[in-house]
Amino acid sequence: MQNEILNFGEVGIFALGGLGEVGKNMYCVQYQDELVIIDSGLLFPDEFLMGIDYVIPDYTYLVENQDKIKALIITHGHEDHIGAIPFLLRQVKIPVIYANGLAIGLIKAKLEDHRGLKANIVEYHEGTPIKFNHITLDFFRTNHSIPDSHGIAIRTKEGIVVHTGDFKFDFTPTFQDASYHTIAKLGQEGVLCLLSDSTNVELEDFTTSEKVVSETIHELFENIHGRVIIATFASNIHRVQQIVEASVKTKRKIAVFGRSMEKNIEVGIQMGYIKAPEGTFIYGREVGQTDRKNLTILCTGSQGEPLAALSRIASGSHKQISLIPGDTVILSSSPIPGNQESVNKTINLLYKAGAVVITQSPFADVHASGHAGQNEQKLMLKLLNPKYFMPIHGEYRMLKKHAQLGIDTGIPKDNTFIMENGDVLALTSNSARIAGKVQTADIYVDGSAIGEIGSQVIKDRRELSEDGLLSVVMTINQDRKEVICTPTIISKGFIYFKDNEAMIKTLQSLSLDVTDRYLNSGKKINISGIKNDLIKTLGKFILDKTNREPMIMPVIMVL
Amino acid sequence: MQNEILNFGEVGIFALGGLGEVGKNMYCVQYQDELVIIDSGLLFPDEFLMGIDYVIPDYTYLVENQDKIKALIITHGHEDHIGAIPFLLRQVKIPVIYANGLAIGLIKAKLEDHRGLKANIVEYHEGTPIKFNHITLDFFRTNHSIPDSHGIAIRTKEGIVVHTGDFKFDFTPTFQDASYHTIAKLGQEGVLCLLSDSTNVELEDFTTSEKVVSETIHELFENIHGRVIIATFASNIHRVQQIVEASVKTKRKIAVFGRSMEKNIEVGIQMGYIKAPEGTFIYGREVGQTDRKNLTILCTGSQGEPLAALSRIASGSHKQISLIPGDTVILSSSPIPGNQESVNKTINLLYKAGAVVITQSPFADVHASGHAGQNEQKLMLKLLNPKYFMPIHGEYRMLKKHAQLGIDTGIPKDNTFIMENGDVLALTSNSARIAGKVQTADIYVDGSAIGEIGSQVIKDRRELSEDGLLSVVMTINQDRKEVICTPTIISKGFIYFKDNEAMIKTLQSLSLDVTDRYLNSGKKINISGIKNDLIKTLGKFILDKTNREPMIMPVIMVL
Repeated sequence: MQNEILNFGEVGIFALGGLGEVGKNMYCVQYQDELVIIDSGLLFPDEFLMGIDYVIPDYTYLVENQDKIKALIITHGHEDHIGAIPFLLRQVKIPVIYANGLAIGLIKAKLEDHRGLKANIVEYHEGTPIKFNHITLDFFRTNHSIPDSHGIAIRTKEGIVVHTGDFKFDFTPTFQDASYHTIAKLGQEGVLCLLSDSTNVELEDFTTSEKVVSETIHELFENIHGRVIIATFASNIHRVQQIVEASVKTKRKIAVFGRSMEKNIEVGIQMGYIKAPEGTFIYGREVGQTDRKNLTILCTGSQGEPLAALSRIASGSHKQISLIPGDTVILSSSPIPGNQESVNKTINLLYKAGAVVITQSPFADVHASGHAGQNEQKLMLKLLNPKYFMPIHGEYRMLKKHAQLGIDTGIPKDNTFIMENGDVLALTSNSARIAGKVQTADIYVDGSAIGEIGSQVIKDRRELSEDGLLSVVMTINQDRKEVICTPTIISKGFIYFKDNEAMIKTLQSLSLDVTDRYLNSGKKINISGIKNDLIKTLGKFILDKTNREPMIMPVIMVL
Repeated sequence: MQNEILNFGEVGIFALGGLGEVGKNMYCVQYQDELVIIDSGLLFPDEFLMGIDYVIPDYTYLVENQDKIKALIITHGHEDHIGAIPFLLRQVKIPVIYANGLAIGLIKAKLEDHRGLKANIVEYHEGTPIKFNHITLDFFRTNHSIPDSHGIAIRTKEGIVVHTGDFKFDFTPTFQDASYHTIAKLGQEGVLCLLSDSTNVELEDFTTSEKVVSETIHELFENIHGRVIIATFASNIHRVQQIVEASVKTKRKIAVFGRSMEKNIEVGIQMGYIKAPEGTFIYGREVGQTDRKNLTILCTGSQGEPLAALSRIASGSHKQISLIPGDTVILSSSPIPGNQESVNKTINLLYKAGAVVITQSPFADVHASGHAGQNEQKLMLKLLNPKYFMPIHGEYRMLKKHAQLGIDTGIPKDNTFIMENGDVLALTSNSARIAGKVQTADIYVDGSAIGEIGSQVIKDRRELSEDGLLSVVMTINQDRKEVICTPTIISKGFIYFKDNEAMIKTLQSLSLDVTDRYLNSGKKINISGIKNDLIKTLGKFILDKTNREPMIMPVIMVL
């Protein structure tokens, strides 16, 4: 790119993922012959995206510019920021991954799950810059819904580019403060360009403080006299610690269910984020021997994921926990867009089983977002006071609204850049322009062994899911130019053929007609010609008769 | 049922659809040898329910009790209350359909769409009871998001059963008031059992009045200086009239896009609900010749439906309307659960095309729900003061919360019935019990001609959508017990075979091995035996190699 898109001396900024979407975050900053990558995340597709497990960015640009890559910097340990690291490492050589605290533990666990994939992971620290030839990195702590989130300052001769990571400002956090002074100092020094988190721009004011959530949880625990079953995001370690504290205070033992929750609590205890007197955590099998009023069941499933602990408890299919009258279920979470329906389904089942269900509402603050509302975004803009502004991490409408906030706080409209994945912003100390585009795409990952999956396969799956498939199998003798034996008609997901024998007969005779006509036309036998005729004729007949359009798959065996 | 489930003299109440869901409403009241059906709706499945167009109730009970059916009563003209009438009429003889006002127009239009299906439709009127031998029907007007919504009072010797239909209380409606006094008189007379709309129970207070929405729309229209593009539910005729009035007041002509909107406006004008000076409505082709500030574009697509006018406008694929700078798009609607994602997608596209987008928010009341919030539901409970209470029209958690409201307002807990589709509530003037269950099911409708679709077909489609299909086609000579020509391997939606020739070769030779072994085993040739062996062997190989499980479909041609 250096030669084609950027002029010499320009700083290039672009995203391979994360613009126009919430997920698969991957931002790049390139200067001279050096390139640093910020985050390597994945995107979880909609529940029904045709069997796809993840979507990841296209890494072609990185493969082609392998020699420039200096490091991958991780802002925090959420899956949309670290989840694609294994896929990246298989395609691109990454000299070093810089990360901090919990993110390091989560990345290491992830690499182990991927058959012991190796990487050089080094911890970064606020106040200890990392220097390359032309780029220097600094860090500042932020508040977010996972410990150890950081923003990054990328220094070049042209100026400082700041990437906020995911952030909010929580003036009364339950754990650590954000680094207000580091952020303010960067602003005083002068920021060339700010890349800032847009996710929660539709909230007008400030996000709720974790302290309020903590107080609500404590209050609820004191007033509940039966079992408390509480689900939250496993990675929200601070929230988990609040739940632990509320349990200890109300003399409850804690039983943990769900693999990711168990794993995160283990890491959290090891790293000192989760502190509990000995004996606080009990085994699942001890639940039955513990007084109901002395029990907290902490579990996964806050998004209604069908296989998670809470969903199993709700549907009565959990091996160890059955709901009993007097149980109170708290969803200390909010549904991620796309999960609303599955969360509702779980809530319906919980009610049906007789539980009291408490969800986030204006009357019970049992959850707070990890992302800045408008006033926090404005505060970040004011503290950093950037010359140029590029909203990141959000769908288009969020980027657009965030850009407007930037303009409202005094950034000239022409200095504001609403970009798409691949767009390259080229900066110097006194200029900015969209310089061109690098290759980007959604890469679908299905299963783990084969890896990526093509868009034609997805298209076929979608078509199959809508009207199913009808196959006609025929055997022809090439020399005698005739069809041998009756065509076989098979369908999957189209109609139930036992109820439609007349239709099978018609399809068989139509297939014979089409093929005979073709074989007797004097033309040279061309199998794809016959197939096309069959698709056309059978398709039309079926559409007329049933108003459906199954995929038609003719198979012709030639003897 | 009379003999088996109800005792003589009991009034039976049950739903064939509408409990535990929002959709396919169909409630039945049976007394002595008479049965009246209230509503015949359908349910629109989730966007991705495998090509299914609608879900309707199982009508078996009605087919088996054909002789008792006196009438179908329609509360109002929404699809979840009238949409399944054509399917019902094909299976069950309905002596008469009673409906009022707009619902009649919409039912007639619907029957015409279904190849001129015939029905005996009679208009009912508040204050004019309809009498059968043992059952008498009365009606009362309610407020809802479509004109002419009614509640129904069903009188028997045992007492009055009241079905609210869908309702809210709007003290300042833009059209007609609810019949407060009729409702209050029923309460004074004494109501045995109330069936009341639970949909909006999660709203603590009152729904917004249409008057507020109307004022907001007027204000917006006055302050917008470019084109207004506004989308709403086509059936919300009162809202459409507000948009017409705001347009007339601000000297805007109205161009209408979207078939259902055109159709509803036509019916609305015919029936006098929509009033506009001549020349207010213009043709689509006149849009280009009209000043931007004098133009309202009223369209469908408020739910992000991919083929509706607004979605096409947003994506740039509408034939007549392209977005231009200065356009303001108003979504006078709220997303129905399940549609949030497609609405967001449309909003992103609209922003991207440069439009200003206004959606319902605390700062702009451009939409109001048609369903009662908690305080309205309590008002209905207070006015009718029923002995027994059965929340209807809602998912389980809504029914549960609504039941609690009933208890809060003074109904004994034991007199409150949270039921499922099929549960039969048996009432006398001084008793109530769940007496048993009638047959219910979700019937899937795909296309219009063949009608219903079996659950095996849906299961196949789901399987196909997840990992696709792999077919192996082989021809064998039965006499010589050998395979003729190389097996053909075909896949759809599994993997892209051009990239995997080695895998095809392996699958072919595995298939030959399996079949040869079978043919040479000395066993009598059993085609399904060979197929099962192929499914097992190929399935295991593919799972090991790719971590996927496509549907495997062997086809064996025997010569």
